Amino acid sequence: MPLPTEGRHRVVIDRVRPEIDGGRFPIKRTVGESVIVAVDAFTDGHDELVVELWYRQATQTEWQKTRLKPGYNDHWEGKFPVTEIGTASYTVVAWIDHFRSWRRDFAKRVAAGQDVTVDLQVGANFLKAALEVAPDHDQAVIQDWLDRIAAKDPQVIAKIAEDATLLQAMDLWSPREHVTRFERDLRVTVDRERARFSAWYEMFPRSAATQPGQHGTLRDVIARLPYVADMGFDVLYLPPIHPIGQKFRKGRNGSTEVQPEDVGSPWAIGDRTGGHKSIHPSLGTLDDFDALVAAAKTFQIDVALDIAFQASPDHPYVAEHPDWFRIRPDGTIQYAENPPKKYQDIYPFNFESADWQNLWQELKSVFEFWIKRGIRVFRVDNPHTKTFPFWEWCITELKQQWPDVIFLAEAFTRPKVMYRLAKLGYSQSYTYYAWRHSAQELTEYVTELTTTEVKEYFRPNFWPNTPDILTEELQQGGRPTFLRRLIMAATLSSNYGIYGPPYEHGWCLPAKAKSEEYINSEKFEVHCHDIARPDSLSGVIRRVNQIRKAHPALQYTIGIKFHPVDNERLFCYSKQSPDGQDLMLIVVNLDNQYKQCGFVDLDLTGWGIEANEPFQVHDLLADARYMWYGSRNYVELDPRHMPAHLFQIRRRVRQGNEMEYFQ
Amino acid sequence: MPLPTEGRHRVVIDRVRPEIDGGRFPIKRTVGESVIVAVDAFTDGHDELVVELWYRQATQTEWQKTRLKPGYNDHWEGKFPVTEIGTASYTVVAWIDHFRSWRRDFAKRVAAGQDVTVDLQVGANFLKAALEVAPDHDQAVIQDWLDRIAAKDPQVIAKIAEDATLLQAMDLWSPREHVTRFERDLRVTVDRERARFSAWYEMFPRSAATQPGQHGTLRDVIARLPYVADMGFDVLYLPPIHPIGQKFRKGRNGSTEVQPEDVGSPWAIGDRTGGHKSIHPSLGTLDDFDALVAAAKTFQIDVALDIAFQASPDHPYVAEHPDWFRIRPDGTIQYAENPPKKYQDIYPFNFESADWQNLWQELKSVFEFWIKRGIRVFRVDNPHTKTFPFWEWCITELKQQWPDVIFLAEAFTRPKVMYRLAKLGYSQSYTYYAWRHSAQELTEYVTELTTTEVKEYFRPNFWPNTPDILTEELQQGGRPTFLRRLIMAATLSSNYGIYGPPYEHGWCLPAKAKSEEYINSEKFEVHCHDIARPDSLSGVIRRVNQIRKAHPALQYTIGIKFHPVDNERLFCYSKQSPDGQDLMLIVVNLDNQYKQCGFVDLDLTGWGIEANEPFQVHDLLADARYMWYGSRNYVELDPRHMPAHLFQIRRRVRQGNEMEYFQ
Repeated sequence: MPLPTEGRHRVVIDRVRPEIDGGRFPIKRTVGESVIVAVDAFTDGHDELVVELWYRQATQTEWQKTRLKPGYNDHWEGKFPVTEIGTASYTVVAWIDHFRSWRRDFAKRVAAGQDVTVDLQVGANFLKAALEVAPDHDQAVIQDWLDRIAAKDPQVIAKIAEDATLLQAMDLWSPREHVTRFERDLRVTVDRERARFSAWYEMFPRSAATQPGQHGTLRDVIARLPYVADMGFDVLYLPPIHPIGQKFRKGRNGSTEVQPEDVGSPWAIGDRTGGHKSIHPSLGTLDDFDALVAAAKTFQIDVALDIAFQASPDHPYVAEHPDWFRIRPDGTIQYAENPPKKYQDIYPFNFESADWQNLWQELKSVFEFWIKRGIRVFRVDNPHTKTFPFWEWCITELKQQWPDVIFLAEAFTRPKVMYRLAKLGYSQSYTYYAWRHSAQELTEYVTELTTTEVKEYFRPNFWPNTPDILTEELQQGGRPTFLRRLIMAATLSSNYGIYGPPYEHGWCLPAKAKSEEYINSEKFEVHCHDIARPDSLSGVIRRVNQIRKAHPALQYTIGIKFHPVDNERLFCYSKQSPDGQDLMLIVVNLDNQYKQCGFVDLDLTGWGIEANEPFQVHDLLADARYMWYGSRNYVELDPRHMPAHLFQIRRRVRQGNEMEYFQ
Repeated sequence: MPLPTEGRHRVVIDRVRPEIDGGRFPIKRTVGESVIVAVDAFTDGHDELVVELWYRQATQTEWQKTRLKPGYNDHWEGKFPVTEIGTASYTVVAWIDHFRSWRRDFAKRVAAGQDVTVDLQVGANFLKAALEVAPDHDQAVIQDWLDRIAAKDPQVIAKIAEDATLLQAMDLWSPREHVTRFERDLRVTVDRERARFSAWYEMFPRSAATQPGQHGTLRDVIARLPYVADMGFDVLYLPPIHPIGQKFRKGRNGSTEVQPEDVGSPWAIGDRTGGHKSIHPSLGTLDDFDALVAAAKTFQIDVALDIAFQASPDHPYVAEHPDWFRIRPDGTIQYAENPPKKYQDIYPFNFESADWQNLWQELKSVFEFWIKRGIRVFRVDNPHTKTFPFWEWCITELKQQWPDVIFLAEAFTRPKVMYRLAKLGYSQSYTYYAWRHSAQELTEYVTELTTTEVKEYFRPNFWPNTPDILTEELQQGGRPTFLRRLIMAATLSSNYGIYGPPYEHGWCLPAKAKSEEYINSEKFEVHCHDIARPDSLSGVIRRVNQIRKAHPALQYTIGIKFHPVDNERLFCYSKQSPDGQDLMLIVVNLDNQYKQCGFVDLDLTGWGIEANEPFQVHDLLADARYMWYGSRNYVELDPRHMPAHLFQIRRRVRQGNEMEYFQ
């Protein structure tokens, strides 16, 4: 081991947090959020340290600096805000502060009545060094003290170690020698707010027509926008809108026996008229598409496209780039399989292709094509069946040019694979929410997502249903279950979504027993929905989304606490906004048949409420108010009426005879 | 982000464990131990992986390879032995196994009765690729199957996917494409066994004479060796043996008023006759030193020197290299201080010296001087008051040339500083043991040392006393406390030590109230010890060290479990050797006055003992045997007799009328 170039940096900077896999991956935040940075820093001996947090917004070239505060056990902490979308950076820098060390020791010497003549000279030398670089004002402060030392002013001995003005000047201008800088600059992917707080609505455009038997169009989707916006959704997600292959087209309910009028699955992408950059002729034109994007914008709605990287046998890629697929020994192209199941209408790309560079470039260009037409949100189909290096490169490249783009990973697979995709760049991720039923399952899962390192890079998006997922719980639970699963998705996670109108209309019939497929699934046929159905859940959904928009506590997935209830069929949790001001308490009856009641056990100290102080809980769903005292309180929920309380916690703020006592 | 050079490596290798600070520091092992390596590895899609552990002993240039085994949730695990002192390496490599993926799918297709003509061709292509590189024997196996495929042997279809011989050949010779290698090669510092398992005995050589009033010599230490060896110690640690400064020499009990006959503190190193590479004239010569080292060797004892990097005002360094110290404005050299306390007999080195390179080289040469005279163990005084970069460089350099050297860090300071020194290279570390008294305190501390990442790099050394540390517990507890603290040190930690003869003789008088200093401390004066004192603890110490040597369970600090007792004055723990064979159960009475009794609650399943099976506990201190049944068993300890049981757990191995039923 050779001698280092500089061996005199005495400060050790250890374990900067947050840091994902030794800085290999960025953490994630949205504009306006803060990053709390903690670090272990220490030096040999007993000298005083300065530990600085350095940070830089996406477009800044100069570091901004702030001092970290020391805590217990060599722990230092501070924070910085992220204010621009793009990639922010942070690192930690530290050095020995000889003036502060001297100052501390000098005070002790004076207190012990020691002769400090020489020590004062030591201090004077620190002042002289600072004097050389200090600007006018601070120079005057320092020179003043130097003069008083030279004049042997007895007051100096008593006061120099306590003078805050001198300390301030010295903090600024004391020479910084042998500075230790943390080995790495760490990164923050800063997204716009919608990456953190969004309500998604998925619908099949071809089912958007108002007359039965008609193939819906993008223009019909435009007409459906007020309905979607009125319910409070801000991302309108469309399954693939591209031409659909003919060869091996699937019939209704996924049958391999196809009828001439069958429309096929939108995920069997491509025919002779085009592929991933084309629009299905029955849906409309690129002009219609532009009109939809523009109309959605007037409702502050992002249109999200489904990017499914696979091809039907009729896709132009197949003829133009057969080497992007796997060729079988008989010269045919390998279709998708999960042996013994065969999906002959789908050709997966071969990411081990010798021509992988061109394949990557082409796939990236698909995103670019739609980004240039105004799309900023993509839901990516099965990203876990494409290679990880591709996603890291593709998302990094795209976000470098368009940092406002949001990617949702539709990977329902093993946890580490899902987390890896998030680390590589996905802004949001589908989750196991649909299959977490009991209070214990939900508590464990949300605790993992919100209290471990996962919270730094994985933004969950909770969906009670999708076109592929009609859970057994929804099949059997009726309206109370549809309400409950929606309310929990919307309040446990700040990002959530539903697949409608089947959700509003309570579709619950599976294709067959033990299947999560819908019968007569929209994946294989056109439907027509009466959005004005009197039994629609749209009214409740509207109310839930209004409450989310009014309450910052619900706009973050973090900040959640679970509270014990003495009835295991009741599930209780609270959410608090980062500034601590907004406080929501949610109580859910997990039983879809019977009224349940019990006592919830709250942690009032965390809320700044005294044990003997009354507070109001205001159910924003029912607009009912209750006065509670203390940590133990009674709740009762009848699922036939409404399976949840969505309480705002209102602390008492006024005395006397004003109307509103609680904020 | 540019396209990677190779984008087709589909396997992700994540979180290789153990890994300290992203590979920045090595883990530690001793020769003969194993490293269990765990990793998360996965790929896109559903292909089969091969994950290999690559490892290399210190002097090997070629990697040895072994396959990791898959567990739950993408976890893979395996292990490798370390067989040579020095620096071993390990990393992880993985790739997609196309043949194994094909084989798995092929079996499913056959089971489903599908036409597999083309699939068999796909498989044949894998075989052909392997055939090109396979040597004779495996080539024949592969060619045989290819012939049978070509002959359309119907048996092939049924059996090719199950044939173990073919699989074995293909595992060896299938082409490995697009291999992912973990970003880093990780390191293991492999020490000799004594770094992990050692019993230290500290003594002042000048107190080794047999006649009161005589200054002991290194020859007297040689005469003391049989005593030390008989007690079972294997490291004999001597405080500094160098010339002692005259200027500001400390008198008895550290007094600043010194008498002409006062011998001074051995840590005030250096006078005009020499410094860190010289021997105090009253102790003897370098020849005497060599004789001591050689004599110790015949007892398998390592002599450990104390390296205290500081100088007395009379040290030759002060005149020759005043720039290695801090110069005060009045031209004097800055002595050690902890304001308002002054230690004018000690000059610390200034590691911010402009001449730091020469300072570093000189300090390293001190180790080298003694290493060349046969010393392989160093106890380093206050390493936390010297810079961290220096230690990393110095220890790395020394261990590169002499990998059998062991360094003990005497840093009684904050936890993160102590852990950092261990990460930087210290082989063993002093601990907080002396100040952990209750069962809860000891359990928490040992749990931190043995179950967190700390166990990978920090080897604790437990000392009940040192010349600086006479704890209040020892001052007040009498013989039961001396016995208890020794037995716990020797059985909780595989490295432990005592400062004797004061420990054997129960020295317990402090210099003053609330002080941990001994009165009439050997640090400042010569003593004469009657090692044959009838009240000496040496007999019990001998027995404890014999038991340690006979029981592998006590030769590792890891492998410890704590067991509940229904009496908080009783402390119970067990240790199991890495191979699981040796099992010790220790029960300690923490009360130094009263007999205590209670029920211990054991976890028999971890020991392979059935709940209804009798087992024998054999107290090796008292040579008493008890028959126990089930997990709950009665214990009773009278501190006036012996404050601990040191049970060997003997499982029943024989039936019938043989003498020894329990192993």
